[in-house]
Amino acid sequence: MTEQVIEVGEAPHGYVPEKDAYLKRLRRVEGQVRGIARMVENDTYCIDVLTQISAVTKALQAVGVGLMEDHLAHCVVDAARRSPEEGAEKVAEASAAIARLVRS
Amino acid sequence: MTEQVIEVGEAPHGYVPEKDAYLKRLRRVEGQVRGIARMVENDTYCIDVLTQISAVTKALQAVGVGLMEDHLAHCVVDAARRSPEEGAEKVAEASAAIARLVRS
Amino acid sequence: MTEQVIEVGEAPHGYVPEKDAYLKRLRRVEGQVRGIARMVENDTYCIDVLTQISAVTKALQAVGVGLMEDHLAHCVVDAARRSPEEGAEKVAEASAAIARLVRS
Amino acid sequence: MTEQVIEVGEAPHGYVPEKDAYLKRLRRVEGQVRGIARMVENDTYCIDVLTQISAVTKALQAVGVGLMEDHLAHCVVDAARRSPEEGAEKVAEASAAIARLVRS
Repeated sequence: MTEQVIEVGEAPHGYVPEKDAYLKRLRRVEGQVRGIARMVENDTYCIDVLTQISAVTKALQAVGVGLMEDHLAHCVVDAARRSPEEGAEKVAEASAAIARLVRS
Repeated sequence: MTEQVIEVGEAPHGYVPEKDAYLKRLRRVEGQVRGIARMVENDTYCIDVLTQISAVTKALQAVGVGLMEDHLAHCVVDAARRSPEEGAEKVAEASAAIARLVRS
Repeated sequence: MTEQVIEVGEAPHGYVPEKDAYLKRLRRVEGQVRGIARMVENDTYCIDVLTQISAVTKALQAVGVGLMEDHLAHCVVDAARRSPEEGAEKVAEASAAIARLVRS
Repeated sequence: MTEQVIEVGEAPHGYVPEKDAYLKRLRRVEGQVRGIARMVENDTYCIDVLTQISAVTKALQAVGVGLMEDHLAHCVVDAARRSPEEGAEKVAEASAAIARLVRS
């Protein structure tokens, strides 16, 4: 639906080669959240709902860790190879995102 | 020491009185996960996707903590009031679920 | 060193029967933190320091989950058996602590 | 496309310039763990012990996030500047450590 015009010499974001795999994982997470809503709708026992919430939280964090790895492997490494300054800038940005992931 | 005369019918699960509020929160989480998939679909910058993943993970964990509070307030307290043995059983089950939430 | 006078009829805190086991675990955690400082002192490779930090964080959270289980099994169940109101009060307090554990 | 002429001697680990600050933080964490043991020793109320455990867990994770930032800024950026292959290797290693931090 959206048209993507990647500038020549501008690498696409790190996760782009794995885009389909990420979309598949995110759709599974979306389906799992819908499943949790259905459990609540059907008065499923609290503990079973909680078990599912823990599983989905883990799945979502695993997507986050995967995206971070791709980001480091592409955006951060490429920036570091262009110049130490660009590398430092990307590292500061990535570190703030890692801190948010760890706290979430 | 105290006399316990408790009549407890088949109480519904702890979260039932708040069911609509939980369903609303879970539907919002579902929409947020769909939004993350859309971000990936549109090649959004990795760090922005990650910020959103951290936010949704937190929202899902907050639903889990809310459900646990309702579970303790109803299922566990009711069981404890029926007998110490039933209370102990429910506490062991809830503690395992808390351990899963903390690790997720 | 401190003298403990437990009021008659007042149960001690939930973890008291397991006190020695908790103290042992906490002393091991303390030793592990000292070990991490030693690793930093000796310029150990960052990733090895981080592996140890993750292990100690998990050990500390496991102590927290254990204390919470004992708290629910004793303080919360006892309060619930005294009256629903006392049970509700203890549950609200425990839930806030669970939320802090999950976020940490 | 860009010319890479990089001279890199045996760089010390990323955190070395901040070593004293890390040692100070780790010693504070060590003292806090000792404080928790003292609270248990003195039969402090469970919830107060748990509050302190959550605080110390957070402090330890913050040290981990800081070390990871220094590791990315030095070891990973330096490796990326030496060659894409060395960069990729360091990124894979760092990502596994990030996954452990997030799960802990």
